[in-house]
Amino acid sequence: MTQPRRRSEATYTGLRCRECGHPYEATAHHVCSEVCFGPLEVVYDMERIKARVSRAAIEAGPLSIWRYRDFLPVDHDPIDVGTGLTPLLRANRLARRLGLKRLYIKNDGVNMPTLSFKDRVVSVALTRARELGFTTVSCASTGNLANSTAAIASHAGMRCCVFIPADLEAGKVLGTLVYNPTLMAVEGNYDQVNRLCCEVANSHGWGFVNINLRPYYSEGSKTLAFEVAEQLGWRLPDHVVAPLASGSLYTKICKGFREFVEAGLVEEKPIRFSGAQAEGCSPIAQAFDAGRDFIAPVKPDTIAKSIAIGNPADGLYALDVARQSGGSITAVSDAEIVSAIKLLAETEGIFTETAGGTTIAVLKKLAESGKIHPDETTVAYITGNGLKTAEAVNDVVGAPFRIDARLDSFNQAWAKASGQTTAGTSPAT
Amino acid sequence: MTQPRRRSEATYTGLRCRECGHPYEATAHHVCSEVCFGPLEVVYDMERIKARVSRAAIEAGPLSIWRYRDFLPVDHDPIDVGTGLTPLLRANRLARRLGLKRLYIKNDGVNMPTLSFKDRVVSVALTRARELGFTTVSCASTGNLANSTAAIASHAGMRCCVFIPADLEAGKVLGTLVYNPTLMAVEGNYDQVNRLCCEVANSHGWGFVNINLRPYYSEGSKTLAFEVAEQLGWRLPDHVVAPLASGSLYTKICKGFREFVEAGLVEEKPIRFSGAQAEGCSPIAQAFDAGRDFIAPVKPDTIAKSIAIGNPADGLYALDVARQSGGSITAVSDAEIVSAIKLLAETEGIFTETAGGTTIAVLKKLAESGKIHPDETTVAYITGNGLKTAEAVNDVVGAPFRIDARLDSFNQAWAKASGQTTAGTSPAT
Ligand SMILES: [Zn+2]
Ligand SMILES: [Zn+2]
Repeated sequence: MTQPRRRSEATYTGLRCRECGHPYEATAHHVCSEVCFGPLEVVYDMERIKARVSRAAIEAGPLSIWRYRDFLPVDHDPIDVGTGLTPLLRANRLARRLGLKRLYIKNDGVNMPTLSFKDRVVSVALTRARELGFTTVSCASTGNLANSTAAIASHAGMRCCVFIPADLEAGKVLGTLVYNPTLMAVEGNYDQVNRLCCEVANSHGWGFVNINLRPYYSEGSKTLAFEVAEQLGWRLPDHVVAPLASGSLYTKICKGFREFVEAGLVEEKPIRFSGAQAEGCSPIAQAFDAGRDFIAPVKPDTIAKSIAIGNPADGLYALDVARQSGGSITAVSDAEIVSAIKLLAETEGIFTETAGGTTIAVLKKLAESGKIHPDETTVAYITGNGLKTAEAVNDVVGAPFRIDARLDSFNQAWAKASGQTTAGTSPAT
Repeated sequence: MTQPRRRSEATYTGLRCRECGHPYEATAHHVCSEVCFGPLEVVYDMERIKARVSRAAIEAGPLSIWRYRDFLPVDHDPIDVGTGLTPLLRANRLARRLGLKRLYIKNDGVNMPTLSFKDRVVSVALTRARELGFTTVSCASTGNLANSTAAIASHAGMRCCVFIPADLEAGKVLGTLVYNPTLMAVEGNYDQVNRLCCEVANSHGWGFVNINLRPYYSEGSKTLAFEVAEQLGWRLPDHVVAPLASGSLYTKICKGFREFVEAGLVEEKPIRFSGAQAEGCSPIAQAFDAGRDFIAPVKPDTIAKSIAIGNPADGLYALDVARQSGGSITAVSDAEIVSAIKLLAETEGIFTETAGGTTIAVLKKLAESGKIHPDETTVAYITGNGLKTAEAVNDVVGAPFRIDARLDSFNQAWAKASGQTTAGTSPAT
């Protein structure tokens, strides 16, 4: 607790149950334990926000998510590691391939510090954890969240303990260990690991970013909406495509746009929200297709591991967003995901992980079936970097030409490459 | 050539020889072929720049290197993939470890699109290549430059052919192939590959970003200075630490700060420039130590491959910068590089590649020997992401605790972790 104790600059007033509305204090608490066991969410004083924010003030703020701090649940100086304000790329070549005219890619694959959108939610969660007096923070994760929690905790000087499944790939273990957390590799399935984490949270009094700090943590995803609105010149898009894991990111993007409208920063207009899942783990897409009002849990089996949540906590809220906005929730196969990773890389120069491939594959499907109108300003959210799941494209990228260091050897290979394709594709060898 | 043919907005007037001053037109040309074979550099009309730029205009510009376009050698709309404006992180925990007080890390490890500073120079080179009418662009590279050229060419829709050594690691090959360039794996040493590339440039009329486009390409590194000055609140730092490969980046950072002073954007003040090399390839550091005015080429043997240039083209200019500014050029061992990667990760949450480890190891050495004063505002430049050379830290990050999914199993491991260290280090197992 090295924070200077200034007058609180908070714009939020507490927590409340999303289901029954019961109020709770802004502590480390995430379920409506007194009434209905619904999830808790942060309550803001929108009048206080409106009195404080303006486009100019935001533009003059830090080059990170903290330029939007009046919309985030923190009291004092945040842990600012430069997270956010990632590029919004006008994607004309991909747009042409898909028959669209105004397509943008929001690329959190270059997010600071650990190359995924998780840096946003962890920055908010650890800031709040520090304010609540936690000195040890934790999470259970199979990859991106582990990297992010370990990295930002190290910058903030907080002790960190990360739980991973015992069979995690060596590369992901290394990408977490380098930040020097205590790393626990747990023998057991995902449910068992989660139960253990809840026990540790209770018995050790730790802050788990995605358990007891979840109401604060999830608010960080709103910045994906704020940045897009600002980067579009203080305008809202017409159509959004985003991946669905728990459904939290998707619903919080919607909430972010709505808050910008309420605060008077952008003009209201209808936005359609389309969600992306992998067929190997598509409980929300299945419910959407069947017109159901409940989510039937599934056992994940897909290469898109970072979004493979079989029993998504915010699935029903995500269904509401899709239905009310006139969007949809669509599933794609692993083969479509891999093709989409290649498509994005070779048209726009962005290498994304499997979750991003899922989003682009769904974007393609929607564009080709006419569900996205060519004139709609469409934003596809890329949530992580391709170097983290490079093995997914191993078999489809071809191989280099092997040549000698002589012009004639080169010329032969070049003629072959030029004959094979007009776009400069690598040969199958 | 899909560029609209507008009136040129250029602020540069041509090229000139850095040695004899002989003027050249702004074509694809990099040596003083008419007089002395010195390197060519871009000449600007500083009065035109001064008439055009202001802090406010820059702040209102794009969130990329192109907010500084008046200082870059382009005529028309640039290829803007969102490169640049990477975070400048206040590094208080690393500073305390080193006995410093005002330390900043400029982190190009999260640069868009391919996580290294090469995205800056390639963005400039390919913009100029397109203006000069090239439809095929190329480079010879062992890693970062290959990724960057392939990615940005794909976004721009330019045909791209990349030359790599035949024995390059599979991961780096994949990270280039995914963008779908034509990839030539050349059997031969670095000199042979380079000679082949010069022949191809001449016989095929291609734009090689780091050969015939080098005068434009290298100007992109100036943006590393511009951004730091702006991010420090339109002030210059006191001390800069940057890696040396060819010496170009280091000298261009110096040039960037000087141009900002000349344009009236920041107040002049002395800056000391310290350079970092790996002992296994330290021709410039050796010349500096010996007080020599020539560079004796070396055969590289270090894990810091991305900066291992045995015969650095801009070595003498880099020596000048170090000597005239009161800085130094220092070499560190591979072991020090690995330790420094870990140090940066566990104090600041930034995972850098071996080149960045070299910079931090030199920063540490300079701080510990009193060559950086504690009160100096010091900026260390991190030029690439740790995921690209993850194998370098494999042996030093320790291993996770393996536990069962039960509280008592966790408690045992946690007690062990807590006993072993107060900082939460992972065990040796
Ligand atoms: Zn309730
Ligand atoms: Zn000359």
